Amino acid sequence: MSDDDTVTVAHGAGTGKTRAFLEDSVVSRFAQNGAGDDLAVGLDALDDGAVHEIDDRSVVVTTDSHVVSPLSFPGGDIGRLAVAGTVNDLAVMGATEPLSLTCSLIVEAGTSVELLEDILDSMEATCEAAGCAITTGDTKVMGSGEVDGVVINTTGVGVIPQGAHVPDAGLSPGDKLVLSGAVGDHGITLLAEREGFDIDGELRSDVAPVNDAVAAALDAGTITAMKDPTRGGLATALNEMATKGAAGIVVDEPAVPVHDAVSAAGELLGIDPFDVANEGEVVFGVDAADADAVVDALQATSVGADAAVIGEVTDEHTGRVVLDTGFGRRYLSEPEGEQLPRIC
Amino acid sequence: MSDDDTVTVAHGAGTGKTRAFLEDSVVSRFAQNGAGDDLAVGLDALDDGAVHEIDDRSVVVTTDSHVVSPLSFPGGDIGRLAVAGTVNDLAVMGATEPLSLTCSLIVEAGTSVELLEDILDSMEATCEAAGCAITTGDTKVMGSGEVDGVVINTTGVGVIPQGAHVPDAGLSPGDKLVLSGAVGDHGITLLAEREGFDIDGELRSDVAPVNDAVAAALDAGTITAMKDPTRGGLATALNEMATKGAAGIVVDEPAVPVHDAVSAAGELLGIDPFDVANEGEVVFGVDAADADAVVDALQATSVGADAAVIGEVTDEHTGRVVLDTGFGRRYLSEPEGEQLPRIC
Ligand SMILES: Nc1ncnc2c1ncn2[C@@H]1O[C@H](COP(=O)(O)OP(=O)(O)OP(=O)(O)O)[C@@H](O)[C@H]1O
Ligand SMILES: Nc1ncnc2c1ncn2[C@@H]1O[C@H](COP(=O)(O)OP(=O)(O)OP(=O)(O)O)[C@@H](O)[C@H]1O
Ligand SMILES: [Mg+2]
Ligand SMILES: [Mg+2]
Ligand SMILES: [Mg+2]
Ligand SMILES: [Mg+2]
Ligand SMILES: [Mg+2]
Ligand SMILES: [Mg+2]
Repeated sequence: MSDDDTVTVAHGAGTGKTRAFLEDSVVSRFAQNGAGDDLAVGLDALDDGAVHEIDDRSVVVTTDSHVVSPLSFPGGDIGRLAVAGTVNDLAVMGATEPLSLTCSLIVEAGTSVELLEDILDSMEATCEAAGCAITTGDTKVMGSGEVDGVVINTTGVGVIPQGAHVPDAGLSPGDKLVLSGAVGDHGITLLAEREGFDIDGELRSDVAPVNDAVAAALDAGTITAMKDPTRGGLATALNEMATKGAAGIVVDEPAVPVHDAVSAAGELLGIDPFDVANEGEVVFGVDAADADAVVDALQATSVGADAAVIGEVTDEHTGRVVLDTGFGRRYLSEPEGEQLPRIC
Repeated sequence: MSDDDTVTVAHGAGTGKTRAFLEDSVVSRFAQNGAGDDLAVGLDALDDGAVHEIDDRSVVVTTDSHVVSPLSFPGGDIGRLAVAGTVNDLAVMGATEPLSLTCSLIVEAGTSVELLEDILDSMEATCEAAGCAITTGDTKVMGSGEVDGVVINTTGVGVIPQGAHVPDAGLSPGDKLVLSGAVGDHGITLLAEREGFDIDGELRSDVAPVNDAVAAALDAGTITAMKDPTRGGLATALNEMATKGAAGIVVDEPAVPVHDAVSAAGELLGIDPFDVANEGEVVFGVDAADADAVVDALQATSVGADAAVIGEVTDEHTGRVVLDTGFGRRYLSEPEGEQLPRIC
C-alpha cells in the first residue's frame, strides 16, 4: 500500500500531512452539517476550537487526546499535559476561565493503580493552577498490549461574552508578533529523554497552563490573533497564522527566545527547536501600539519571563513566513513531522 | 501484585469495580475543586454528565471514549457508537438537541485511510440522524502495536433552560419505570460475534441516537429520572438509580422486552441480557399518571417500538432492585463485569 493509503505517524504530527488529511477526509465530511447559524468558528476554520453563539454569550469547545511516551518526563507528565493542553486551547480562543473540563482515561490492563493516581493528582494540581475543574469523565480499560500505558482525552468548555473570541486567522499587516516565552523546550526535552541524554539536567518541558498569561495579554492591549504552537512547533503555528490571515510574517530570529540547553540538544539531535511542540507558549498578533504593553504584562506572569516581540506582519510574502537571521532572509517552512511520534 | 494494585478489565466494565475506583480514586481527587456555585450536577453525582448553570441556561457536558472490538459489527460500527453514545448521555441529562460534538481520533499507524473514512462517514450519518454536528476534534497517531486499531473519544455539549436537566437520581416511590425498548442486543451481539456465531443472522446491536425518543417522552409526561443502560446493562442502571434515588425498584421481569435471538444467544453464552451493554435504550422514571402516555409517545419514535412499563418504584427495599419473575421474587444484582472487555 502506498503512503497515501495508510495512516502514518506523519498524519498525527500536526503539520502538512495532518492538515491534508483534515481537509480531505474530515472537514469535507463534517463541516457545517447540522450546525445552526450559531456557529461563529466552525470546523472548517481548523482553529484551536469551535465557537457557538447563544444569546449574548459564546460557548467555546476544544478537545485533545494525549498519547505521550514516556508518561512522565522532566517538567511534567501526561496528567499535567492533558489539563494544560485543553486549558491552553480554550485560552487562545479567548476563554481564559474554563467552565468545565472532562477527563477520559483509556488505560492498559496491568497499569498500576498508584501510577494512575499519580497522574490524577497531577491533573488535579494543574487544574488548581489553572483555576478550573474536571466535572465529568470516562474510564475504559483495554487489554494488556492493546494500548501502551495510559491515553487521556480532555475536552474543555468555556463561556465568554459574544464576540470576545480571538481566531488564529486575525493577523493584519502592521501587527506585531509577540511570543510568550522560549520555544522548543517540550519537544527537545522529550526527544532527548528518549535518546537518554540531558545535558546537566537542564532540559525541562514548558508544559503549563497559560490562561492567566493570555488574560493578562488581553487586558493589556488589542490582540488580533492567538495560537498555541504545539505539534509542529513555532514554525507550523506561524505558517498557519500567515496562511489563514492572508498576511506575510517577518520573524526576527535573534529575538526568538531559545534556552541554551535546548539549542545545544537540538543540534545534537539534528532537530530545530522551531519545529517541535511547545506546551506552555502562545503566539499573539498584537496591535503595534500595544506590543510593548503586552510584553510587559506577559513578563509579569508566571510563564512569561522570556516574553518578547519576535516579528511583524507585512503585506508582502502573503501566506509565508520570512526568517530574518540578522545576516540574511529565508523562508521558514513547516517541518515534515515524520520523525516525532508521541511527544504530546 | 494483588488485584487492587493494578488496573484490570473490571475497572472498565462500568459496574461495581469501576464505581469503587471512581469513588476512591477519582471523585475524592477532583470533586468540587475549582467548580463555582454554578455546578448543578457535579462529578460527585456520577451521573451521565455534568450540568453547569449560566444565567438562565444550563450547560450539559458529557464524554465517552470508545474502544470497541471489532470496529464494525452487526448493526453498527465504532463511528455510530461514538456519536450515539455521547448524544445519548446528553439526552438522558435532558439535552436532546446537542450544541456541539467533538471527535478525537486515536489511530494505529498502518490503519487504512479507507477504513478511517468509512468510520467518519458513519459518524456523519449518525450526526445527521441525531441532528447534531461535530465542530472540533483532534487526531493522534500511535505506532503500530501501540494501540489496537482506532479509539474515538466524543464529548458533547448541550444548552437547555435552567432547571430542565433530569438527574439519574430522581426516582420517588410511586413512579413507574419505563424502558424504551428491548435489552441485551448490543452486548450479546458483540459477544456472539467474537465467538463466531449468530443464529440466523438475527443478532444486531441496538446502537442508535435516542435523543428524539427522549424528547418525545419529555413532551408526553413528567420524567423524574433517566439513564442509558450502557456498560453493566439494565441490571447496573437500575441498581444505580435505586441507590441514588434512595428508593426500591420492583421489576416485572416478563414485561422487560428481550428479543428471542438475544435470549437464545445469551443462554448459549451463559450471559444474562440484563447484564450487558445497550447502546440505544433509556430507562425512565415516570410520574405514574403519565406512564401510558410516555409509552405511547415512545412507541411512535423510530427506536421505541418495544417501549413498555417494566416496573415501579416502592418505599420498600430501599436501594435495591427486586425482580418479580411471575413465579417469585429475587434481588437483581449487578454483574461483576470481569468477562466483557471492549464491547463499547
Ligand atoms: N478527528 C477530527 N475530527 C474533527 N476535527 C478535527 C479532527 N482532528 C483535528 N480536527 C480539527 O483540526 C484542527 C487542528 O487540530 P489540531 O489538533 O492540530 O489543533 P490543536 O489542538 O490546536 O493542536 P494540538 O493537537 O497540537 O494541541 C482543529 O480545528 C481541530 O478541531
Ligand atoms: N476518568 C474519570 N474522570 C472523571 N470522572 C469520571 C471518570 N470516569 C468516569 N467518570 C464519571 O463517572 C460517572 C460514571 O461514568 P460512566 O462512564 O460509567 O457513565 P456513562 O458514560 O453514562 O456510561 P458508559 O461509559 O457506559 O456509556 C460519570 O459521572 C462520569 O463523569
Ligand atoms: Mg492549539
Ligand atoms: Mg491543542
Ligand atoms: Mg462513560
Ligand atoms: Mg450514561
Ligand atoms: Mg455513556
Ligand atoms: Mg489537537
